[in-house]
Amino acid sequence: MSSAKKLLGDYSNEPSRRPELVVNSKEPFNAETPPPLLVKDFKTPVDLFYVRSHGPTPDLDVSSHKLEIGGEIKPAIELSLSEVQTIGQHVTIDATLTCAGNRRNELNAIKKVKGVGWEISAIGNATWTGVRLRDVLLHAKANIDSPHLHVEFIGEEDCEEKTKYGSSIPMTKAADPKGDVLLAWMMNGKPLTRDHGYPLRIVVPGYIGARSVKWLRKVNVIPQESQFVYQQRDYKLFLPHVNWDTVDALWDSAFSLSELSVQSAICEPEKDQVIAKNSPYTIRGYAVSNGRRITRVDVSVRKHRLKGIRPDRFPNWGTTSAFIMGKCATLKNQTKLFSLVTHTHSDIGWQIKKIKFWRRLWDAL
Amino acid sequence: MSSAKKLLGDYSNEPSRRPELVVNSKEPFNAETPPPLLVKDFKTPVDLFYVRSHGPTPDLDVSSHKLEIGGEIKPAIELSLSEVQTIGQHVTIDATLTCAGNRRNELNAIKKVKGVGWEISAIGNATWTGVRLRDVLLHAKANIDSPHLHVEFIGEEDCEEKTKYGSSIPMTKAADPKGDVLLAWMMNGKPLTRDHGYPLRIVVPGYIGARSVKWLRKVNVIPQESQFVYQQRDYKLFLPHVNWDTVDALWDSAFSLSELSVQSAICEPEKDQVIAKNSPYTIRGYAVSNGRRITRVDVSVRKHRLKGIRPDRFPNWGTTSAFIMGKCATLKNQTKLFSLVTHTHSDIGWQIKKIKFWRRLWDAL
Repeated sequence: MSSAKKLLGDYSNEPSRRPELVVNSKEPFNAETPPPLLVKDFKTPVDLFYVRSHGPTPDLDVSSHKLEIGGEIKPAIELSLSEVQTIGQHVTIDATLTCAGNRRNELNAIKKVKGVGWEISAIGNATWTGVRLRDVLLHAKANIDSPHLHVEFIGEEDCEEKTKYGSSIPMTKAADPKGDVLLAWMMNGKPLTRDHGYPLRIVVPGYIGARSVKWLRKVNVIPQESQFVYQQRDYKLFLPHVNWDTVDALWDSAFSLSELSVQSAICEPEKDQVIAKNSPYTIRGYAVSNGRRITRVDVSVRKHRLKGIRPDRFPNWGTTSAFIMGKCATLKNQTKLFSLVTHTHSDIGWQIKKIKFWRRLWDAL
Repeated sequence: MSSAKKLLGDYSNEPSRRPELVVNSKEPFNAETPPPLLVKDFKTPVDLFYVRSHGPTPDLDVSSHKLEIGGEIKPAIELSLSEVQTIGQHVTIDATLTCAGNRRNELNAIKKVKGVGWEISAIGNATWTGVRLRDVLLHAKANIDSPHLHVEFIGEEDCEEKTKYGSSIPMTKAADPKGDVLLAWMMNGKPLTRDHGYPLRIVVPGYIGARSVKWLRKVNVIPQESQFVYQQRDYKLFLPHVNWDTVDALWDSAFSLSELSVQSAICEPEKDQVIAKNSPYTIRGYAVSNGRRITRVDVSVRKHRLKGIRPDRFPNWGTTSAFIMGKCATLKNQTKLFSLVTHTHSDIGWQIKKIKFWRRLWDAL
């Protein structure tokens, strides 16, 4: 079915999905990876990768689909996928994507906010293949050296908000050769699936997932940030005292979320998991930054001091807490990757009914 | 007196200095700006700019002084200042320099650490003129695209540690055209003073001041971080439980401080200043980041709610605290500048003996 034929809000043509996905909303489809599967491997399988959508999933025909490069590019250029593929070198990168709302349920526990109720797994690592946005911008003769320009992406998604999905990033990121922004058509070595933007999407490493627009239809070079609701009225952050009665005066002064903040989560044991007395268990989790090195991840089992762990093996060993050293995040050509942190803990001296963890996370200052 | 003639620890030839400087150590000379003078103007006067030294102040003769470019550059190149000035375009930038130990006295109040006891003014904004290190590296045919190389700077300072002063930065920063790393010979439009590195120094915007080596003698392209004590055994950060008995096993796993963290301080009123009941006063301070935009600075007068300040003028107005919006930091070609924050507060409803402030600072996520 072509997107032109699709009715707004018609969910009769959704792709099939893995039953393991934790579904937070069915229409539009929003689902995340079960935490233990997230930390099973460094690379997240495509069919277990979190899905964020704002409307019915487009079902596009690659043979007729065109990408338009416009805005300040006049006249606009139209390109088929195979034409896009002839622009610039094909590049394969590893990059983390994560929803800005990842772990929103933890925010909700403090104060209720709007948005999809994500747990900790609206995040994933994948390998992406495409051409650099920089090369496409150069091909279109865009002024890539202008620090004030922005580059807008519009997808073929008919969103719940009765608009296509659109968003932007600054030209400084879009054209940065080390920024690794791609027009990607492959994920983990295979063509994109419908859930992940077939036939063509943007991948913006180190930025919130909302800027990595799927089902890409247009790239516009524009003099200011995108005016789409997803840039101006969504994905912004406010102080705790701001509420839905007072936010309207504040939207324009709040900046658009872009670069990721440093963040970590424990995926195993799972929340509220009960571990039997004296049974060994393994702690696994992730740590992610905006691309700067994760220099240390500390994990502490509250009120419990690990014994038998030598300080020289665990440089962050403390006298009142147990710390472990996380593997450093891979920093390869500024690609952003979360890293897995694993530690087996087997020396529990008393009965544990419920484990509470805290993490302390440092990135390179 | 030439540096060759100077004895280690001979402080008989120090330059004259402004009596307003707050001296933290006389030999070597370490002094900072009085906080109210720091926020008087956006640009800090050279003779009030904080001074950090590790030994007697060199007194170099520009006519005989040579800069060597070496390490992996073989044979090494020797350049006079006038030869350096013929390499690449002359560039003038505004940049903040700050000591990594700025506000160490606040750390000391929690747990005693080593190092100069700085208050809040080991920081300053200046205008620097020089040539880009990138251009000098290209001139020397250095492999500027190798992400694993480092660039070491060695100055003509005979330090207390019985070594010259030396330090390094990654090639990715050294050669980044937007990184603005300069070999500078002018500060605020005049030749460098002796206290600030005459005749030639490095300026590394956005990095701790320890990397902006003064009295520059050598630039070495090297395959790993500088082995000088100032890179390997100084300017590193540890968890609070680490002490001088346990740190030795940890030096090598701790990363070298480089990029600045986000930070803010109030300079007026001064610490412990008493303000009379109902008298208006102005709050002034600074905010600094590693170059990302400072999006908001919040100031709260504890237990006091400002009246008569309209929420639409002060978007961060809260119901239980008074907030002000700081001016955004200037971000010009990735130069890092601290910004001044000013707010006049005149509506005090009860007697104030002592004002305690806290600041909340956000950079763009």
